[in-house]
Amino acid sequence: MEALWENSSGSHQQVVPITVFVAVLCFCLVIGHLLEENRWVNESITALIIGCVTGTIILLISKGKSSHILIFDEELFFIYLLPPIIFNAGFQVKKKQFFHNFFTIMLFGVVGVFISSVIITAGTYFLFPKFDLVGLTPRDYLGIGTIFSSTDTVCTLQVLHQEETPLLYSLVFGEGVVNDATSVVLFNAIQKLDVSRIDRWTALRVLADFLYLFATSTALGVAAGLLTAIVLKGLYFGRHSTIREIALMVLMAYLSYMLAELLGLSGILTVFFSGIFMSHYAWHNVTDSSRITTKHVFAMMSFIAEAFIFLYVGMDALDIEKWKMSKLSVWNSIGVYSSVMLLILLGRAAFVFPLGALSNCLNRSPTGSSSLKLKHQMIIWWAGLMRGAVSIALAFKQFTQMGVTLDPVHATLVTTTIIIVLFSTVVFGFLTRPLVSYLIPHPNIDRELSVNKEDMNSMRLPLLSTEESASSNLLRAKQSLSMLMERPVYTIHSLWRRFDDYYMRPIFGGPRSNQSAC
Amino acid sequence: MEALWENSSGSHQQVVPITVFVAVLCFCLVIGHLLEENRWVNESITALIIGCVTGTIILLISKGKSSHILIFDEELFFIYLLPPIIFNAGFQVKKKQFFHNFFTIMLFGVVGVFISSVIITAGTYFLFPKFDLVGLTPRDYLGIGTIFSSTDTVCTLQVLHQEETPLLYSLVFGEGVVNDATSVVLFNAIQKLDVSRIDRWTALRVLADFLYLFATSTALGVAAGLLTAIVLKGLYFGRHSTIREIALMVLMAYLSYMLAELLGLSGILTVFFSGIFMSHYAWHNVTDSSRITTKHVFAMMSFIAEAFIFLYVGMDALDIEKWKMSKLSVWNSIGVYSSVMLLILLGRAAFVFPLGALSNCLNRSPTGSSSLKLKHQMIIWWAGLMRGAVSIALAFKQFTQMGVTLDPVHATLVTTTIIIVLFSTVVFGFLTRPLVSYLIPHPNIDRELSVNKEDMNSMRLPLLSTEESASSNLLRAKQSLSMLMERPVYTIHSLWRRFDDYYMRPIFGGPRSNQSAC
Repeated sequence: MEALWENSSGSHQQVVPITVFVAVLCFCLVIGHLLEENRWVNESITALIIGCVTGTIILLISKGKSSHILIFDEELFFIYLLPPIIFNAGFQVKKKQFFHNFFTIMLFGVVGVFISSVIITAGTYFLFPKFDLVGLTPRDYLGIGTIFSSTDTVCTLQVLHQEETPLLYSLVFGEGVVNDATSVVLFNAIQKLDVSRIDRWTALRVLADFLYLFATSTALGVAAGLLTAIVLKGLYFGRHSTIREIALMVLMAYLSYMLAELLGLSGILTVFFSGIFMSHYAWHNVTDSSRITTKHVFAMMSFIAEAFIFLYVGMDALDIEKWKMSKLSVWNSIGVYSSVMLLILLGRAAFVFPLGALSNCLNRSPTGSSSLKLKHQMIIWWAGLMRGAVSIALAFKQFTQMGVTLDPVHATLVTTTIIIVLFSTVVFGFLTRPLVSYLIPHPNIDRELSVNKEDMNSMRLPLLSTEESASSNLLRAKQSLSMLMERPVYTIHSLWRRFDDYYMRPIFGGPRSNQSAC
Repeated sequence: MEALWENSSGSHQQVVPITVFVAVLCFCLVIGHLLEENRWVNESITALIIGCVTGTIILLISKGKSSHILIFDEELFFIYLLPPIIFNAGFQVKKKQFFHNFFTIMLFGVVGVFISSVIITAGTYFLFPKFDLVGLTPRDYLGIGTIFSSTDTVCTLQVLHQEETPLLYSLVFGEGVVNDATSVVLFNAIQKLDVSRIDRWTALRVLADFLYLFATSTALGVAAGLLTAIVLKGLYFGRHSTIREIALMVLMAYLSYMLAELLGLSGILTVFFSGIFMSHYAWHNVTDSSRITTKHVFAMMSFIAEAFIFLYVGMDALDIEKWKMSKLSVWNSIGVYSSVMLLILLGRAAFVFPLGALSNCLNRSPTGSSSLKLKHQMIIWWAGLMRGAVSIALAFKQFTQMGVTLDPVHATLVTTTIIIVLFSTVVFGFLTRPLVSYLIPHPNIDRELSVNKEDMNSMRLPLLSTEESASSNLLRAKQSLSMLMERPVYTIHSLWRRFDDYYMRPIFGGPRSNQSAC
């Protein structure tokens, strides 16, 4: 992480920023815990505010020279801070819910980003020149579209409860992760784009590139997860060694990410899927202590990385050099911020409500239990308005060289990103809790829990067939076919579960659903 | 960790060495596990050999240009790799045994390093010129003495069993850690020394500097551990949050290390004592999951850091640039290696046997159970013959600038250190298991276990007094005084245990010995 810190004559100088950062992180942690029960504030807001305060203090101590004691290097963000966050997301995701709602999540997370970034790109292309912000290339505009389409759903997830609203939680969580991955993949696809010859095929080329990256990255992640599972199952059978098991999982996860980056794929998607497959298979091949440890370790690493990023963003907000460099007048600046904010609101509304309706059509069920009501769509829309670390990282990647820029327009865009992240996280974040309690006023825990139990029962249906005769299996196959016509998504999911039970779990590990965990 | 890697034009170049290293680490882990039951090989040897093989492969691929894909930076070793190893040592140490044998451990770990480094400094000062190795300053010789006095007891600890030989295990383990800390502190004290005016007070000044560093570093570590315990106890009372608890422990441990480095103290000692105090107090204030997780996480981080270091040393052994630079003839080189090796053997023998006898005098007990027999002293002597990561790091710190040296004499000393580490780890490491099984042929598990139980009973003695009357306490005080005369070390230990029970644990957490863990 050294290159993060400013170059200094003696390498002992590194010690100062690391010490300051670790001390502030500790402070953040304690304050965050004390404010946990608070109605308005959440972890991200706390970290941002503490970051701002620390930045101010450093600014005063260094007599206005510089508030940031380290230079943001977006490569290091992608190499060290992002992998644990995304891996943990994959590892902790409730797989049943996730795959159950896979289609809807993909709609929101993939198609949504495309729609949102097209709208933001087009909007900024027309609006920015009106505020004297000129000199951007087409690639810059495409980049801006992607930068402001990446969401940060942490705030909302802290407010929603998995037990009270399982469907909503699963959608917001799933979309958040897929959205991050999609934004980064799309961003990279745009970087590779030859902008000098934009023709009618450009959009198709970006799409093809995207789909290729998406498929290969997912395949690599799945392969890494399965390999870890097989190694853990094969080698460690009979004599377990907790430390080695944990180390192997950590290292393999990281290896999959780095390998993806090395091959020019999307590490973020790879590590997400390797997380899913590790928790689905590999996790069942290790000792009980390893299970408890891995669960908490990955969560902790993700937690620290997230706090670090928000802290940094808070501190970087006071980087006066960037502010001085920006040549825009105050009113033009406010115009730029407001137009980006409006486009974000608009771009997200433009896909949440139509895609929500589409998802309801495809997931129609007799009971209507899994339909997305309008208020749920409202919450999904709101949940994705916050912008976070990925936006910052992409903005630095697009508009700076190793955290430094000499172009006033680029400096303006970096400060704009920081302002948008600060504003959306703090203001929208403050309003999330009241909004959720207004829209879901008295969460009917009992009702939702019973729905959950119903789901569990329907989940168990396929595995009854293990004890049934061939004829009844044939009957079931016919039923499956008719179900596939009626409820396509649900049926694909149940077919996968049967395949998983019969072929995958015996090879890669994990309890057969009708057996006790071994 | 970037500055570790060679500077490259594009920062994406970092991805290659990280990927290679993580992949080789995974491989090491699996091989290490497969060879676990092997009679001769251990983890360190495996990592060293795999490192050599990887180095050869890279040498062949890069067509003889360079075998090492990263440059060793001893600052980074001290900032990232050493803290987890030492903290884990403090965290996992059996505190009862450690403090029970505190005096003996300090004798071996502190006084021993002084004796050994004086002998090695004097010996090399007379022997090196005989092999055409000239041009070293007095500070270099003092540095060499310290570099080759730092031991690596991992090999031996893998062979000894804590249950079979608790006393021996505790001594070897404790000495290993204290030795590491002492070497680094002594090395830093020598660095600060004004060599231009060496007079009769020089030794005293080094000693005073050493004692000051030792005392302040320990105090800082203890303070950090107690602060963590109080924060965890005070803030988290009633509503536990596993992730925050773990994160706070990790960050506070690291903060104590960095703070010590910032203040010019010995981070290694600080983090060791903060580890001891965290596991003694803070660990009892957290949830069960946090306890399991922290135990394994710290062990895993230490494991990975150790494997990384040995892997690196193996790869660095093939750094042909350093070999080319060394101007010594083959025979002179062999002379240098042999003389250093002999001095190590001699320097260690010179303190293990006399100090062992001294320890027996001070720890004399009626049953004679805790006396160090000659064969035990032999094993302690042997256990400290291996040289490891700390030697390498100190050698790089003394003789290179950011891993590079242009002075042929300095290059010779770096290669000498690598050879000594390789030789002692592989050859002595191979012989350790046979030697131990020869000296302790049929470990009498039952007998040793019963001794252990006896110890446990005597441990529980002081706490009986909680239910006793004042008069019997007075009687006990008299007894204590007479015990202090008879068995000074043992009595101090039992007094501390009473103080701990009455004052420390109620404030900082941890079960009262006569209560069940809460």
